[in-house]
Amino acid sequence: MSGQDSLAHLRDLTRAFARERDWEQFHTPKNLAMALTVEAAELAEHFQWLPTGADHELDARKREGIRHELADVLLYLVQLADKTGVDLHAAAVEKIALNAAKYPAGQVKGDSRKYDQYD
Amino acid sequence: MSGQDSLAHLRDLTRAFARERDWEQFHTPKNLAMALTVEAAELAEHFQWLPTGADHELDARKREGIRHELADVLLYLVQLADKTGVDLHAAAVEKIALNAAKYPAGQVKGDSRKYDQYD
Amino acid sequence: MSGQDSLAHLRDLTRAFARERDWEQFHTPKNLAMALTVEAAELAEHFQWLPTGADHELDARKREGIRHELADVLLYLVQLADKTGVDLHAAAVEKIALNAAKYPAGQVKGDSRKYDQYD
Amino acid sequence: MSGQDSLAHLRDLTRAFARERDWEQFHTPKNLAMALTVEAAELAEHFQWLPTGADHELDARKREGIRHELADVLLYLVQLADKTGVDLHAAAVEKIALNAAKYPAGQVKGDSRKYDQYD
Repeated sequence: MSGQDSLAHLRDLTRAFARERDWEQFHTPKNLAMALTVEAAELAEHFQWLPTGADHELDARKREGIRHELADVLLYLVQLADKTGVDLHAAAVEKIALNAAKYPAGQVKGDSRKYDQYD
Repeated sequence: MSGQDSLAHLRDLTRAFARERDWEQFHTPKNLAMALTVEAAELAEHFQWLPTGADHELDARKREGIRHELADVLLYLVQLADKTGVDLHAAAVEKIALNAAKYPAGQVKGDSRKYDQYD
Repeated sequence: MSGQDSLAHLRDLTRAFARERDWEQFHTPKNLAMALTVEAAELAEHFQWLPTGADHELDARKREGIRHELADVLLYLVQLADKTGVDLHAAAVEKIALNAAKYPAGQVKGDSRKYDQYD
Repeated sequence: MSGQDSLAHLRDLTRAFARERDWEQFHTPKNLAMALTVEAAELAEHFQWLPTGADHELDARKREGIRHELADVLLYLVQLADKTGVDLHAAAVEKIALNAAKYPAGQVKGDSRKYDQYD
């Protein structure tokens, strides 16, 4: 990466990839969001009939499929963030802070219920 | 970030967040993959009735929602990659190279059809 | 159908299909819900790079794919409703009535904003 | 239903609902497909942190949410099939026959692997 941050690097790679193919015309935020849900589902498909998806449940073929689908999700995510002007890292750090306030560690320990189900 | 790469930083933050809440027990790869599809759909929901999702179609409320959902997708993606031992940046760089071979720029210019529809 | 309602007929067919393959063990409500999101995404994939999905944008190959994916979604939906004891037709009629109250025709005419954005 | 088949009844109800609100303009096949994935994910959200989604894991609140989301998925499915000219019941019966040929009961008994993983 020669010092460039990984997310910035991927943003640059995806920009070049789309430009070289004249695919920017298809990459509206709406289309990218739709493509992202499709890739997320293809990722989920690898796990749907497994008990938990733990390492010993996965063979080499599944591992490769999972790695490729994780990549596809990230690539569309980076492109959608780029089109909507969102700094992904900053947004994620902000969201973790919001989640920490919504689910205080002392209150939700070991409990997976959604925050709005707490009284 | 004090020099740490953004994706490594988010991996560390999500690990600490889950550990402090004793939520690691819920974070099987399967459950994280399912949560990822849910967040991807919440992101898509912001765009579903819009023509394209371009800037002028979005008000401040929608922008904030989109930023938060982009973050949620990334946070689950980082956690799922962590659990399955995948280096997200390396996987994405590998996938771009595979996509470049599958969709040669000279052949697919301006055409959005899936690669398996080319003769 | 010899008089049997279409949804009841499909419920009977899916029950027999799963029983003959001893697949009931995999058909937990959670797994069926996950499979449903995967099929819904495969359906969406046919439309993601199209302007609107109108008839003239679809060739015979896409039409067949769409028909099969619509079927897959319905089949998982019928199975999930069966496992959770939900009468799909009654639930849909109930939901239309709730939607009609939430989005009064006179108030939302020609406006696609979500109901919670109305004052 | 006074004799009308349940799926035909829901098709008629959704047509009237959209027409009364002048929402047909938003109901392109693409938008309906996207809305369907969103509703499928909202349905999945009810199950994502549960072990299996079996009856004893669900309280009254979750049951109601599941019933409403099952209905939402069906309503978008009925509308998308209507717009693309697909007879949902016939398509599902056809797909079950295709699945039966792809996964012969004698060969796949108790095995959830995808058909393309069989030799």
